[in-house]
Amino acid sequence: MGTVTIREVGPRDGLQSEHPTDVSGRINLIRALVEAGCKDIEVCSFVSPQAVPAMAGAADVVAGLGRLEGVRRWALVPNARGAALALESGVDAVTATVSASESYSQKNTHRSIAETVQELPSIIGAAGRLPVDVVVSCAFGSPWEPELDADDVAAVGRSALEAGATAVTFADTTGTALPDRLERLIEAWGTAKGVGVHLHDTRGTALVNAYRALQLGIDRFDTAVGGLGGSPFAAGAGGNLATEDLVHLCDGMGIVTGIDLERLLDAIPVVEGLVGHEAPGRVARHGPRTRRAD
Amino acid sequence: MGTVTIREVGPRDGLQSEHPTDVSGRINLIRALVEAGCKDIEVCSFVSPQAVPAMAGAADVVAGLGRLEGVRRWALVPNARGAALALESGVDAVTATVSASESYSQKNTHRSIAETVQELPSIIGAAGRLPVDVVVSCAFGSPWEPELDADDVAAVGRSALEAGATAVTFADTTGTALPDRLERLIEAWGTAKGVGVHLHDTRGTALVNAYRALQLGIDRFDTAVGGLGGSPFAAGAGGNLATEDLVHLCDGMGIVTGIDLERLLDAIPVVEGLVGHEAPGRVARHGPRTRRAD
Repeated sequence: MGTVTIREVGPRDGLQSEHPTDVSGRINLIRALVEAGCKDIEVCSFVSPQAVPAMAGAADVVAGLGRLEGVRRWALVPNARGAALALESGVDAVTATVSASESYSQKNTHRSIAETVQELPSIIGAAGRLPVDVVVSCAFGSPWEPELDADDVAAVGRSALEAGATAVTFADTTGTALPDRLERLIEAWGTAKGVGVHLHDTRGTALVNAYRALQLGIDRFDTAVGGLGGSPFAAGAGGNLATEDLVHLCDGMGIVTGIDLERLLDAIPVVEGLVGHEAPGRVARHGPRTRRAD
Repeated sequence: MGTVTIREVGPRDGLQSEHPTDVSGRINLIRALVEAGCKDIEVCSFVSPQAVPAMAGAADVVAGLGRLEGVRRWALVPNARGAALALESGVDAVTATVSASESYSQKNTHRSIAETVQELPSIIGAAGRLPVDVVVSCAFGSPWEPELDADDVAAVGRSALEAGATAVTFADTTGTALPDRLERLIEAWGTAKGVGVHLHDTRGTALVNAYRALQLGIDRFDTAVGGLGGSPFAAGAGGNLATEDLVHLCDGMGIVTGIDLERLLDAIPVVEGLVGHEAPGRVARHGPRTRRAD
């Protein structure tokens, strides 16, 4: 049934709203994820440590990890300065964000959608040789405005490609997607090929959206170990789709993820130890369906 | 896109593992569910109050409710004695259970599958004029044995029909179903028509299974308000698929449930007040995607 690429965003999106944890703890988590077979990991973001204290020490995370054979270390960058820092750090690829929601764009960046799109060429330029995946946030709507038009959302994604992005990922930042919205966006975009989706589980819909995405032919997903996460700028954004929940589904469907579920579950106590509370992911709590009770 | 029938099992499956609550509180909850548009409600079970203290006073629940115009009040019955009590109480329909898992059958009833199937004619006889839906528990496997053969599970369902059951519902008692198992069981059963599914969310898979069920043409679901529930005889069974989460999905897909989501959410504080803790359902916590933040 094919293969999917899972980008593990737990060390960035999973931790950014949590109480700050030290660089060595974050490196330990990333190493546990590498052990589980994760090949794409968003390891940090080059944002202001004043704005997002949990992401302080981004360059130290990258330096401490060093090169990881066969693993792409991603960094989120909010602007050209962040992209320059990411390039300098030796990271392998970057994500930049634009919003499909005017309201969220203002809340998150104090800029309009058009203004953030205009900044993309300078960010992409500053990233130099690094691949840049532009994540379109609130691509399936938000709680701050009426339903978005899928053609408008697709247009934001297209403008990112025109600006030089190597890929586009549509994010359900506030967990308002349902299968019908995924269908409409893919229809407006024209193809499922090459598109990534980044799902949040605010309303318990992340896995059903991932399933529909798989049916539509989407093969690139952002997920976070343990289902941690949420935007620090979107109250009630809810955690990310849990990596182990998607791997559990894919294993059951015969879809290859390259991630070993049992070893991934070994990373759960590591991330729970970092954040100091239980991870919301469900397979993390109860184990995979194939695990026997006796 | 059609219509589905949702049987609200919260007052029975949702409450049976909770601290016992008085009859009047359970009646208040059921009335709130009727207000929301629920037309099929499992209001109680005629089990031994020693075995399941939270279900004590079943006949009082039915008598206190009285006849409800356009609403079928269901009762779970474990045996012929329970069926006779249900008939006497004036309830409108009953559910009886058999297990597709030998291990669970022994744990739950101290009888083999074959023995419980042999008891069905006497239960159905004792229920007299009442429709009897036989719920096949662990129909998608259990943590206590290797994968079940879908043909064997379907055979258990067929034996229930042969015993005189008016309908069969396949239950994912321990939350081990995934879309592929639903597909296999429907294939073994021969049709999606008339089949009900009763899903639990132990591993966060209840909604994705419901979505696949809808795609396969299944149009009858058991759900529990707030996502409460779990078998008192299966540790870690996890809550039921939350009624509001399924209604939220159906609303988004244009599928008619007859249930008003906002009024159903009014029942959440009622059920939370009864059980004394937060309901696990996700839409209950964050509201439907169509609810605006400002």
